[in-house]
Amino acid sequence: MEFIRRSIINFKQYPHRLFYYGLRRNYCTKNGEAESEEWPRRVVTGLQPTGALHVGNYFGALRRCVRLQDTGDDLMIFIADLHSLTTHQNPQALQENSMELAALLLASGVDPERSVVFVQSAVARHAELCWLLACLATQARLAHLPQYKEKAATLKEVPLGLLLYPVLQAADVLVYGATHVAVGGDQAQHLQVAAQLVRTFRHRYGCQPFPTPRALLPDDGSDRIRSLRDPSKKMSKSDPDGKSRILLSDPDDVIALKIRKAVTDFTPQVTYEPDTRPGVSNLVTLHCLAAGLTAEEAVEEAAALTTAQYKQVVARALVAELAPLRERAADLRRRPRLLRDVLRAGAARARRRADAVYERVAAAVGLAPHAPPADRARAAR
Amino acid sequence: MEFIRRSIINFKQYPHRLFYYGLRRNYCTKNGEAESEEWPRRVVTGLQPTGALHVGNYFGALRRCVRLQDTGDDLMIFIADLHSLTTHQNPQALQENSMELAALLLASGVDPERSVVFVQSAVARHAELCWLLACLATQARLAHLPQYKEKAATLKEVPLGLLLYPVLQAADVLVYGATHVAVGGDQAQHLQVAAQLVRTFRHRYGCQPFPTPRALLPDDGSDRIRSLRDPSKKMSKSDPDGKSRILLSDPDDVIALKIRKAVTDFTPQVTYEPDTRPGVSNLVTLHCLAAGLTAEEAVEEAAALTTAQYKQVVARALVAELAPLRERAADLRRRPRLLRDVLRAGAARARRRADAVYERVAAAVGLAPHAPPADRARAAR
Repeated sequence: MEFIRRSIINFKQYPHRLFYYGLRRNYCTKNGEAESEEWPRRVVTGLQPTGALHVGNYFGALRRCVRLQDTGDDLMIFIADLHSLTTHQNPQALQENSMELAALLLASGVDPERSVVFVQSAVARHAELCWLLACLATQARLAHLPQYKEKAATLKEVPLGLLLYPVLQAADVLVYGATHVAVGGDQAQHLQVAAQLVRTFRHRYGCQPFPTPRALLPDDGSDRIRSLRDPSKKMSKSDPDGKSRILLSDPDDVIALKIRKAVTDFTPQVTYEPDTRPGVSNLVTLHCLAAGLTAEEAVEEAAALTTAQYKQVVARALVAELAPLRERAADLRRRPRLLRDVLRAGAARARRRADAVYERVAAAVGLAPHAPPADRARAAR
Repeated sequence: MEFIRRSIINFKQYPHRLFYYGLRRNYCTKNGEAESEEWPRRVVTGLQPTGALHVGNYFGALRRCVRLQDTGDDLMIFIADLHSLTTHQNPQALQENSMELAALLLASGVDPERSVVFVQSAVARHAELCWLLACLATQARLAHLPQYKEKAATLKEVPLGLLLYPVLQAADVLVYGATHVAVGGDQAQHLQVAAQLVRTFRHRYGCQPFPTPRALLPDDGSDRIRSLRDPSKKMSKSDPDGKSRILLSDPDDVIALKIRKAVTDFTPQVTYEPDTRPGVSNLVTLHCLAAGLTAEEAVEEAAALTTAQYKQVVARALVAELAPLRERAADLRRRPRLLRDVLRAGAARARRRADAVYERVAAAVGLAPHAPPADRARAAR
């Protein structure tokens, strides 16, 4: 791993972690909800390789990972390529997006020595546990999940993968004995599926090889970032208007332009009132996230400014945050071998952890033992 | 493998393959249906570890494997423990039944050097390909399969595993690039699911990493063995009347007793008329299978006998076939380490074959390459 450490270490010199102080406490609440002596705290999170990431993805997912890592959490981050396949994907784009996401994670400050970073499909136990859990999950319950109903309604033919989606999500987390899962608010329902599967497993087999995982929701506003063109909507990669979002690949002048064109209202004063003034409040949110301020601090800083002037402040804060990220990512993109080495080492670590849990599960359900543990550990290394 | 060979070789001394001559040709028809230069003929078959196997299972599954093997087929036999989990299983029984099935396969004459014998759950690629195929399968189609509808109708809560069942079956076969699948007639519909998935894959990804597998159906009557108490029904392990079936564990006198008590009709003459005289015809079928005769030969042999006298002939033929099998199985049961070694070696061979196909599939759908092939091969060994 030493060669990886040396390659990564350069990216740590950038002072891009100033922003923690204001919000850090929200991520530190190790209040012992799910963890215990039997189940030490472990946080798992999965990110879909969707491509063309925007600032919403950055603050809500990438930088969130770094902050969890920096609180000292035992963190596992996987690139959820298997989940992506539940919708049509261009194979080449999927592969490129996976590598791009890996580059952005490292560029954001994820340290592959402290956190375990890997691609989901590199660890077979996800799919293996998914099958075992599918035998415990009921169709009726899965078909009633709002996300499923919403997506299924738009399709002529519903792939089985869509129904299985939350079962694989449960496997992603349970296979590492995770106590917590860092998710967005819209995924909380799927965690209920995981909790139900843990209960069913205990009921059927009289043992519980994994803890019931709890959701860790973001509480720094990073899941409230709105479209710059229509603040009633969330910022989204599927919005047809490119000016509605700031991409992580946007150069500085484009960032400034998109912020300048951001829809606000006719009151020139800067206030933070998300319900009545969503446009301006969205700028305050972005400013807070980029500069590490609370909303009060940001509004105070903007007291003497008009909205138009404040936009320049926000743009500068975003550029200060995103320009170095862009550079580091570009640097990493030129070193695909390094990225692959990082992911391969991460997958090997993840496999060892998954093997430990899966062996207990397999024994509990009555699968024949296949190899002495020593053999397995060797194969996983 | 040498130590395994030496251990197995003893079981080959038993002259239990005399019966091939009559029926062998039915299994030799390598008429080039699915195989080609690109896809050399490979036969895969899976057996569920249900426990308490009866003569129907022996002739229809175990001995059938031996005969496929002895025609020189590239044969892979797996113990389908993952499939078993779609219905409630006692974990300990499942594990014991898996080992028992392995013992019976070897006792029947399966040679683990010529055929690849392994436990399904030991090869992760089954579950991994199952996920990829589930993303291509449509729920509507799966929910319309007769076997699914039949089983689902008896359940209050339908596990998702039941809907996934034929998808895992497809994965079992496609993951080895099998050209043929040895199945019973009732599974042919599930093979259509596999064929459909191959078409969908080709349509979506513009390539076909596996051949379309064809069914190999038994044509020696081994799938027509009826209950001894009610010849209108198939012989079944779930029949409440134990006298309806001959178990492979039944001692010689119990076999003779059960045959003597077999329901026939009031005509003393022995004929082979399955539609009008199912009871007597069932005895002829058992006789043919055990003694390697055609129905005509068996009826000719019984020309001077009453049904009651013929039953003694049938019982003797069955005892001659099953007694040595029982002995060999008992011998193997006393050597669990040998069985595990055989299964482990089989799983390693299966993994190498599965890796070759799965890597092509993973690349086609856009999963990131995870390890250089050399690493994979090492891990699989």
